[in-house]
Amino acid sequence: MNTLFEKPCLLFLGDVGSALDAKTALGLLQWRPEDCVGQWFLPGCGVDIGIASLDPALARAEGARSLVIGVAPSGGLLPDHWIASLKEALEAGLDLVSGLHTPLQQVTELRECAARCGRQLIDVRIPPSQTTVGSGRARAGKRLLMVGTDCCVGKKYSALALHRAMVEQGLSATFRATGQTGIMIAGAGIPLDAVVADFLSGAAESLSPDNSPEHWDVIEGQGSLFHPAYAAVTLGLIHGSQPDAMVLCHAAGRTHIDEYVDYAIPSLSDCLRAYLAAASLTNPMTRFVGACINTTGLSVAHREICLREIEEELNLPCVDPLCGDLEVIVRSLSSD
Amino acid sequence: MNTLFEKPCLLFLGDVGSALDAKTALGLLQWRPEDCVGQWFLPGCGVDIGIASLDPALARAEGARSLVIGVAPSGGLLPDHWIASLKEALEAGLDLVSGLHTPLQQVTELRECAARCGRQLIDVRIPPSQTTVGSGRARAGKRLLMVGTDCCVGKKYSALALHRAMVEQGLSATFRATGQTGIMIAGAGIPLDAVVADFLSGAAESLSPDNSPEHWDVIEGQGSLFHPAYAAVTLGLIHGSQPDAMVLCHAAGRTHIDEYVDYAIPSLSDCLRAYLAAASLTNPMTRFVGACINTTGLSVAHREICLREIEEELNLPCVDPLCGDLEVIVRSLSSD
Repeated sequence: MNTLFEKPCLLFLGDVGSALDAKTALGLLQWRPEDCVGQWFLPGCGVDIGIASLDPALARAEGARSLVIGVAPSGGLLPDHWIASLKEALEAGLDLVSGLHTPLQQVTELRECAARCGRQLIDVRIPPSQTTVGSGRARAGKRLLMVGTDCCVGKKYSALALHRAMVEQGLSATFRATGQTGIMIAGAGIPLDAVVADFLSGAAESLSPDNSPEHWDVIEGQGSLFHPAYAAVTLGLIHGSQPDAMVLCHAAGRTHIDEYVDYAIPSLSDCLRAYLAAASLTNPMTRFVGACINTTGLSVAHREICLREIEEELNLPCVDPLCGDLEVIVRSLSSD
Repeated sequence: MNTLFEKPCLLFLGDVGSALDAKTALGLLQWRPEDCVGQWFLPGCGVDIGIASLDPALARAEGARSLVIGVAPSGGLLPDHWIASLKEALEAGLDLVSGLHTPLQQVTELRECAARCGRQLIDVRIPPSQTTVGSGRARAGKRLLMVGTDCCVGKKYSALALHRAMVEQGLSATFRATGQTGIMIAGAGIPLDAVVADFLSGAAESLSPDNSPEHWDVIEGQGSLFHPAYAAVTLGLIHGSQPDAMVLCHAAGRTHIDEYVDYAIPSLSDCLRAYLAAASLTNPMTRFVGACINTTGLSVAHREICLREIEEELNLPCVDPLCGDLEVIVRSLSSD
């Protein structure tokens, strides 16, 4: 149940240049197509996500209740020249939903316009005001955490796909979102990268609270232990999640941390070892149950070779979640 | 140079129960005695730090310019019943300086009183509004970082004492504070535990910027890699600091993380290995140059045995910075 914002929604693409900038819109469309009535882009936009193009008034007439800013412009800041369009959406009767670093609430023009129109401004990147530090206490229920060799290797996708596969296999499972797109898809979650450092593992603990013994929380990963900027976020998430099981997410062929040319990604077996060492602090029984490999760009033949090679190296089931069957990882999960 | 607040200062102890709660006052008195004109405690206070007892008006007459809240009440929140005393200080002509979680700026009564009296409210726990993520780029100059087996093992004290010993040995060195007491002592720094998670290593990078090749930044540590709540802060500090050298800080006899009975501290050699593995991500040449062991409570004879045992285990110079000579660690630092 989405308790964050009212649906269905219109996806706003602004005037971003490429589909890479439209991760949020594409994620929502992929995982919640029934909630997306259309897209709205500005002149100069380089992206078309292939659904009806509607302006806010038309979308409202089609039943839309919210406008979701579905793009992440460089730096995560709100471009000034989008404000007139966002006001148009408020005036058409839509709430605004944003995962940008700039809180909509801080933009005076939008705040005043929303008040005048009786609409809501919903900033999903503002974390709950969190003042409990991690307890380190073991919790009931089970947790499956995605961990990555880098950012943008498919951790969110893998978590959502595994969650779906687990539910299809009859397991009791909940997807737990830790980033803005995941939160919009799930309608709940904690934007972990926005939490104050002291409360990181405490926030991760509260994201997957005590549950029934057979229940699995499937937790979206963040960052990478091998990333010079974000490894701390990753470690806080690991320690608070206390994962019983982990899945390694990797983009085939990536050898270095994206945009950090001096930072090579270790061998995948070294990655496993580092994650096991980190996670064993709060859950000594933690283990890997599989690897999700993004093979986009490889031919079918090369994909199979790549997956079998990694499977052999890691001795773990290895699947491209975009096109492979995750049942083998779900089975490995149950083989306690 | 202290650019944070005007000195000298009066140290406010409130009505806390024990000297453990008065870490900030004791730290300032120890490292900046020339800046402390007196102490002020409320009825019921269990601490006397052994300097002149003055009320704000008397302290002002002695030249005081600021009242420093020198205690950390449980939870770091400002007790309501202190507010009248703090207003008395403002009215006597003192600025207020606080490292509490509750920002003084958020207390309406104090904000109004400060405005009326033309005084400042200085919250050292509010980090600079930081929006740069870590770059991972190597910087000029050298960095020495304190790392601990736990919180409260003497990382701040060790950094300050090593900094002093290095300057005495003619090295060019700057103490870099990462916590509220250190920041009050240094008059500058970044409260790392209050930084938003995404910007942790970026904040640590900005704390020790490019410098001349022979200059050492001596960086106060935070938390511990073995702490289930705070390891993420520790890792972000390590990655952003890119330490050329580290000193392991430990409290003799401590076997478990304080207040986390399920969390045993690993052997000291395992601690070294874990810190080297973590730090080598952003500085593959990092190394340990010594260990600072807090032997409070041991007899002189036992202290020496304890230090020699650890020295043998770690093959590193090993000193109690409260009573030993740190020159041996400073020498080890220069032996590149």
